[in-house]
Amino acid sequence: MSQMRIEKDSLGQRELPADVLYGINTVRALENFPLTGRTIATLPGFVAAMAMVKEAAARANREIGALSTDRAEAIIKACREIHAGKHDAHLVVDVLEGSGGTSCNMNVNEVVANLAARLAGKPAGDYAFVHPNEHVNLGQSTNDVVPTAMKLAVFRVLEGASLALMGLADGFSEKKKEHAETLRLGRTCLQDAVPMLLGQTFGGYQAVIQRHAKHLEDLCRRLLTVPLGGTAVGTGLNSRPGYKQAVFRHLSVLVGHEVKPTADAFDGMQNLDTCARLSAELRNSANSLWKIANDLIVLSSGPGGGGIGEIALPAVQVGSSIMPGKVNPVIPMAVCQAAFAICGNDAAIAMACQQGLLEINHYELLIADRLIDSITLLQRSATIFLERCVRSLTANEERSWQNLLASSALATALVPELGYAPVASTVRAALDEHRPFLDVAVERGLLRREDVRSAMRRAAVEPPGASG
Amino acid sequence: MSQMRIEKDSLGQRELPADVLYGINTVRALENFPLTGRTIATLPGFVAAMAMVKEAAARANREIGALSTDRAEAIIKACREIHAGKHDAHLVVDVLEGSGGTSCNMNVNEVVANLAARLAGKPAGDYAFVHPNEHVNLGQSTNDVVPTAMKLAVFRVLEGASLALMGLADGFSEKKKEHAETLRLGRTCLQDAVPMLLGQTFGGYQAVIQRHAKHLEDLCRRLLTVPLGGTAVGTGLNSRPGYKQAVFRHLSVLVGHEVKPTADAFDGMQNLDTCARLSAELRNSANSLWKIANDLIVLSSGPGGGGIGEIALPAVQVGSSIMPGKVNPVIPMAVCQAAFAICGNDAAIAMACQQGLLEINHYELLIADRLIDSITLLQRSATIFLERCVRSLTANEERSWQNLLASSALATALVPELGYAPVASTVRAALDEHRPFLDVAVERGLLRREDVRSAMRRAAVEPPGASG
Amino acid sequence: MSQMRIEKDSLGQRELPADVLYGINTVRALENFPLTGRTIATLPGFVAAMAMVKEAAARANREIGALSTDRAEAIIKACREIHAGKHDAHLVVDVLEGSGGTSCNMNVNEVVANLAARLAGKPAGDYAFVHPNEHVNLGQSTNDVVPTAMKLAVFRVLEGASLALMGLADGFSEKKKEHAETLRLGRTCLQDAVPMLLGQTFGGYQAVIQRHAKHLEDLCRRLLTVPLGGTAVGTGLNSRPGYKQAVFRHLSVLVGHEVKPTADAFDGMQNLDTCARLSAELRNSANSLWKIANDLIVLSSGPGGGGIGEIALPAVQVGSSIMPGKVNPVIPMAVCQAAFAICGNDAAIAMACQQGLLEINHYELLIADRLIDSITLLQRSATIFLERCVRSLTANEERSWQNLLASSALATALVPELGYAPVASTVRAALDEHRPFLDVAVERGLLRREDVRSAMRRAAVEPPGASG
Amino acid sequence: MSQMRIEKDSLGQRELPADVLYGINTVRALENFPLTGRTIATLPGFVAAMAMVKEAAARANREIGALSTDRAEAIIKACREIHAGKHDAHLVVDVLEGSGGTSCNMNVNEVVANLAARLAGKPAGDYAFVHPNEHVNLGQSTNDVVPTAMKLAVFRVLEGASLALMGLADGFSEKKKEHAETLRLGRTCLQDAVPMLLGQTFGGYQAVIQRHAKHLEDLCRRLLTVPLGGTAVGTGLNSRPGYKQAVFRHLSVLVGHEVKPTADAFDGMQNLDTCARLSAELRNSANSLWKIANDLIVLSSGPGGGGIGEIALPAVQVGSSIMPGKVNPVIPMAVCQAAFAICGNDAAIAMACQQGLLEINHYELLIADRLIDSITLLQRSATIFLERCVRSLTANEERSWQNLLASSALATALVPELGYAPVASTVRAALDEHRPFLDVAVERGLLRREDVRSAMRRAAVEPPGASG
Repeated sequence: MSQMRIEKDSLGQRELPADVLYGINTVRALENFPLTGRTIATLPGFVAAMAMVKEAAARANREIGALSTDRAEAIIKACREIHAGKHDAHLVVDVLEGSGGTSCNMNVNEVVANLAARLAGKPAGDYAFVHPNEHVNLGQSTNDVVPTAMKLAVFRVLEGASLALMGLADGFSEKKKEHAETLRLGRTCLQDAVPMLLGQTFGGYQAVIQRHAKHLEDLCRRLLTVPLGGTAVGTGLNSRPGYKQAVFRHLSVLVGHEVKPTADAFDGMQNLDTCARLSAELRNSANSLWKIANDLIVLSSGPGGGGIGEIALPAVQVGSSIMPGKVNPVIPMAVCQAAFAICGNDAAIAMACQQGLLEINHYELLIADRLIDSITLLQRSATIFLERCVRSLTANEERSWQNLLASSALATALVPELGYAPVASTVRAALDEHRPFLDVAVERGLLRREDVRSAMRRAAVEPPGASG
Repeated sequence: MSQMRIEKDSLGQRELPADVLYGINTVRALENFPLTGRTIATLPGFVAAMAMVKEAAARANREIGALSTDRAEAIIKACREIHAGKHDAHLVVDVLEGSGGTSCNMNVNEVVANLAARLAGKPAGDYAFVHPNEHVNLGQSTNDVVPTAMKLAVFRVLEGASLALMGLADGFSEKKKEHAETLRLGRTCLQDAVPMLLGQTFGGYQAVIQRHAKHLEDLCRRLLTVPLGGTAVGTGLNSRPGYKQAVFRHLSVLVGHEVKPTADAFDGMQNLDTCARLSAELRNSANSLWKIANDLIVLSSGPGGGGIGEIALPAVQVGSSIMPGKVNPVIPMAVCQAAFAICGNDAAIAMACQQGLLEINHYELLIADRLIDSITLLQRSATIFLERCVRSLTANEERSWQNLLASSALATALVPELGYAPVASTVRAALDEHRPFLDVAVERGLLRREDVRSAMRRAAVEPPGASG
Repeated sequence: MSQMRIEKDSLGQRELPADVLYGINTVRALENFPLTGRTIATLPGFVAAMAMVKEAAARANREIGALSTDRAEAIIKACREIHAGKHDAHLVVDVLEGSGGTSCNMNVNEVVANLAARLAGKPAGDYAFVHPNEHVNLGQSTNDVVPTAMKLAVFRVLEGASLALMGLADGFSEKKKEHAETLRLGRTCLQDAVPMLLGQTFGGYQAVIQRHAKHLEDLCRRLLTVPLGGTAVGTGLNSRPGYKQAVFRHLSVLVGHEVKPTADAFDGMQNLDTCARLSAELRNSANSLWKIANDLIVLSSGPGGGGIGEIALPAVQVGSSIMPGKVNPVIPMAVCQAAFAICGNDAAIAMACQQGLLEINHYELLIADRLIDSITLLQRSATIFLERCVRSLTANEERSWQNLLASSALATALVPELGYAPVASTVRAALDEHRPFLDVAVERGLLRREDVRSAMRRAAVEPPGASG
Repeated sequence: MSQMRIEKDSLGQRELPADVLYGINTVRALENFPLTGRTIATLPGFVAAMAMVKEAAARANREIGALSTDRAEAIIKACREIHAGKHDAHLVVDVLEGSGGTSCNMNVNEVVANLAARLAGKPAGDYAFVHPNEHVNLGQSTNDVVPTAMKLAVFRVLEGASLALMGLADGFSEKKKEHAETLRLGRTCLQDAVPMLLGQTFGGYQAVIQRHAKHLEDLCRRLLTVPLGGTAVGTGLNSRPGYKQAVFRHLSVLVGHEVKPTADAFDGMQNLDTCARLSAELRNSANSLWKIANDLIVLSSGPGGGGIGEIALPAVQVGSSIMPGKVNPVIPMAVCQAAFAICGNDAAIAMACQQGLLEINHYELLIADRLIDSITLLQRSATIFLERCVRSLTANEERSWQNLLASSALATALVPELGYAPVASTVRAALDEHRPFLDVAVERGLLRREDVRSAMRRAAVEPPGASG
């Protein structure tokens, strides 16, 4: 059996394995919050961000003389190891808790303190050299540290999502060029409408995805404005003169980007509207991807028994456990499914952001968890969408053309040149005689069969209005 | 009995009162969509925006020679009357329908055409002079006209909401200044925390509201980029050379701001992400107002039997039908309630924006209806919040001070100056002796009674970190 | 100019037109809550339900001797007139407010009192004979009256929605029988799957709609359990002995169904989970209608240029302002759009139901407003779905058959009889030779051409598993 | 380096480690769906349910002679091992995918087949003895197997959640009894209202939680109605005579409860409204817990500087990293936070349930994932709520009494006995003289000081209406 040690706090004491790096606060959190079974160490980037904040604080406190050099160095070294992921097994607080982040802040403080003790050759639990509260947490509070770390963690993953969207937009840009001459039937309400080009459709996709990418990029920058230095409620109580300025300088170096305090410290403590705004843009991005994915499912519907079938998605796996030869649009469907998850996360995040109470919002951990889930899902679904679907999709040009010919689009396309009346009477005649409109139109001399394609193309590509 | 006239379309005919200004398309829509009982004329700004689009199109078509001067003038005159709200009784299509806006576009086309007929001394239903499709709708499609008008209508109401938020932010700015010296107890988790100033709390409110106002202002501008000129699917089919350029020029004059086509015409037809983004910001704004309103309910809780009671909201009505003397925070509660409605609208709008299908989104009318409801509720709730609550709220300075004294905040405030150990031992002694912390602290010489206020103030206003 | 009168309350006084039936409480509510512009009189059934509660209370109070006969009779008479909708012009409080319903309760109390005064030949504002609080509101509180009236109002409209769903289910039942022999291609992921019958598809629709109707019916009954008699917080303070029993007896008579108190009076005051549950079922019903409507849009897609086109929806209006001959699935699209609205309402209602606070929930008016909107939209969209779409939809049997033949479904259908290997090799041969599977299969003697239909039918109708 | 083997499918081939138990379909799914990083094996109960379905199918197929005894036995043995969790490392498909469950069904099929091969002494990848599709999947399709397994998995976890709620309700029932005589001040809008008992408040909590528990229990049973036997679209194509009846008999034995086919097979394939209904009830349950948790936060607010403080929650951890002595309501806050997550999950599930398409819904995996997350969170948060908060909470009886005395509740309580006028004049006098109402009332002989408590109690416990 492993040896045990005892730690005490103002409520009593707890026994814990002698060599674990966390302490009594963490033990209590484990007792109190057996909620998801996922630890804060599994939340991408979060513990690393906490370690950066703790390191920056130690550097700032050393600089202003609030922390001795040897303590500061021990803390910094410990933070580096945590940042590198070496102690994830000791960062065990559940991602969901009810302490407004106190438990996860204390878990980090305790692990840093115990690592520092170990560096100093002391056993875990000996906080004489470096104390979780007095030294690691010096000049800080859960209330300013956790939202800061949360935003930095989100910042880190968000960059990738924005890039993934940009890549997907580029993928559609390629397809736009590739199909700049592929005629297809435009449809509204899934009913035949007018001629257009497949490239035009893809251009619309590119534009909206690019817009989302840019908005996310924009929001990304705003995540670097954080409430650090506010301590418990924004007043900075318990931090020393010079600390705030110094900690932001050090943190900026560690993050590799300028990190700034909120203009109004109390605003920074009270409000997580930036997270709500980000979540909403993730939702809206996911919904735009849903729309495009659904379009591709519709456009590739078929293959034999009806459906539109104007594009072919790459076959990336066998489609059915019992129907031989079936290939399904599995990638677009994964994109749709991810969108639902992201929409759900947004609903949770919006509620959590709404319910700040007086000086702070207590729900950052849920917000972080669901934001990072959304961002990851968006990035990954955008990536498979690009790489396993969009990049290799092809047009069924012949079927597109036949669909166009079989539709009423030609008639509409001829109206501007021929006038409404002759076209309409031809439509009616074709219907009465159960013959294709084209045959009757040719017979009546409205156009020559060899001019159909150019008429269609003209209708699609050279809208007279555009040349105005 | 009133006289009837008959109109025909490709599906048959309908009898309608001889003098109504709408026609058979509207009649069919009335049959098909008895959904909300609210007509498009009741949707603030929408019919006026439709009239501006129709007028701009007539001017553009006249300019490029597509429409005779007399027809154009008749259409313009009719549009002006509609814009002025004179024919609302004839704009009767339900705000919710399933035609992707066709019914409401045709309702407007028919009313314009019949007004033109009336101007020309012809009876309603005589479309020889001005035809709903051939002349009023010339160069247009429901698919570009309706989203354009929708965005213009939203633009119009949104300006007021942004201003209302800005006004409310100013209101809190006043309160921030007014209470720049009012000490209160900061609380987290509704438990005593540390000293701060009431003005600081209000400053946080000001900042977040101002941020929402600016975001809404930003989104407002984006509403002036519209898909007009795209006709059915973005290609502009059926519009004439020069039309697109001209119609935007005329529309900009009518709107009084520059209205621009989307850079990619197909993007403009497919995507309503701007509406989703706007809706999300409205939701987030409403949620921030919810948070502030809830704070005020909590801070004014009381009056006698417990509660915080640090502020007093103006009594704007008697609070109870049976409890004499009860005054409730009815304005903040109205703000909260409006927030729920806005959140619900956002859920509906997000789904509708998601479900564009191929070339267009068919749900603009729902989106317009719920967006305008949200904007109106946000504006009105922000306005009553300012005028009937925030502007006249006062601080209960004495109760604030007593709350602060009775809390453990003083102990925390003394830690930076006196060190943790002496303060903690005093806390313990006070608890053991069931005496106020302050009394024991004074007795022990930790501070003089006359210095308490300045110690509290220093803790709140001069965080040493801030001076760094 | 009209004459004015003055009313006073504990906060001061207000001038109001001499002949209006409301009083100072209503005037203050008008000042405080200019939110939606819609009055409580526009909320279907709500004012009528309030009138029933007030009448029942007057009857109960008379019975137990708490109210004199002449006062009770005047109140009863006034309630009858209000119930009949005669005084809607005086029930002017906004449907959204922040008083937890106090304003609307007082509006009704005041109108009853002034009607009673009028009956007694006294001017409006003379409350000596019948006082809004002392007599009309006797034994009641806003807190028990408003949720009671709200549930009764919802009860009233809900019956119709449940019936409309049942009607729609019957409509699909008819279609199920009508198409019990219509072969079609089953599809998953919009890709060809296996043969089935159109009637089977419709049977699935019938079943789910019927299930929703039954759940709504169930929830409907639960609305008749109300917190009346609890007065302010559930204790019944300020009501007289015998009142509670009597008021439920009288209310049951007026409603025409047994109305019951909640088993735990405090539960009844605190919780609106029944409303949340109802709203969720409305949402789920709407989502099922959305699914069916979307299926019909997909199944009727076409007409000429691709699409499935296996059913034809009745043409209920011309489909486009510029494309001649276009007919769109406008009724299913209206159903989809209504579903979005209902989903949004549910989001708002769920939040409002969540946020009860201590003894009561203060958001009944929003809940009532959005619930009734949802119910009305569900009923109306189910009704037009049945009457203007489902009832007259027809199958394109030939196209269905051709789609089935052109698909790979036949191959899958033959596997059980012929074994996987010969079928798979035939599939491969057909693909290699670019010939229809059927031709190759017939050539290879796998089946006779004249047996195709019976093989398809067998695959669809006589699943061997079903006979087990 | 480990040895590799090669597997082929109709799209090509893949190399995979020689000893893994999955096959090429799983490999492709790993390539296609790197979405959450969580495997289906991590989804509580899901793989076990899949194993039960596969075993039941093997037993049924053996019984009807469709599968040889040795194959069936090998499959059954493999399923047992999988059910016992022994092969989770090979059930590696991501919980989110886009194949409508095909990938996860094939993952299970492949692992079963390879385990069977191993049992027969054959290497992995040798499917001659037991083939994933031909034998393991015999008579099944992803489309009937996955929703069946999903419902069974949800069923399994749901029982615990319902019990946890029932336990929590019992906890409040205890508190109701314990505080059946504890007077407190009832509040509406956080303002003083009237006297009541703390036990009454808890009784309301008990009732609503119990109601949710019962509804969940009810929905639990409905999960045992599943679409198994429908194969691809409900027709049961490719299953043998007698299979369906047999498979349900065997499955019922394995599950330990009667599992039934849906009355309409196509309904069972198309619709997941039972999941949507369950999710909504989970949301509503979570929202009721939110309300109660928030009440407890409010009622325990304090401790020194204002707040209500009428109850004390057990201190389960130190509350702040910097404020000594702070104890926060961390368990109620965890409950609130879990509620947000559950609400978000519900939004995702509702969308996924909405978007069935024709014969099936393709999003069962997301639905399963989020449902099980919600159920687990609800169960766990209800459990900690009971065990770490409710069970040990105590009343601050003295503070409750002082709050009540200091409020205006006494005045209201006296009205029924003394009449409105004398009470109101005393209220006014007390206000004018800045003295407590009680003192003035005693002075005026309205009541004796020693009768105050009994007057309060009478107001709370013996509402005259109740005795009627």
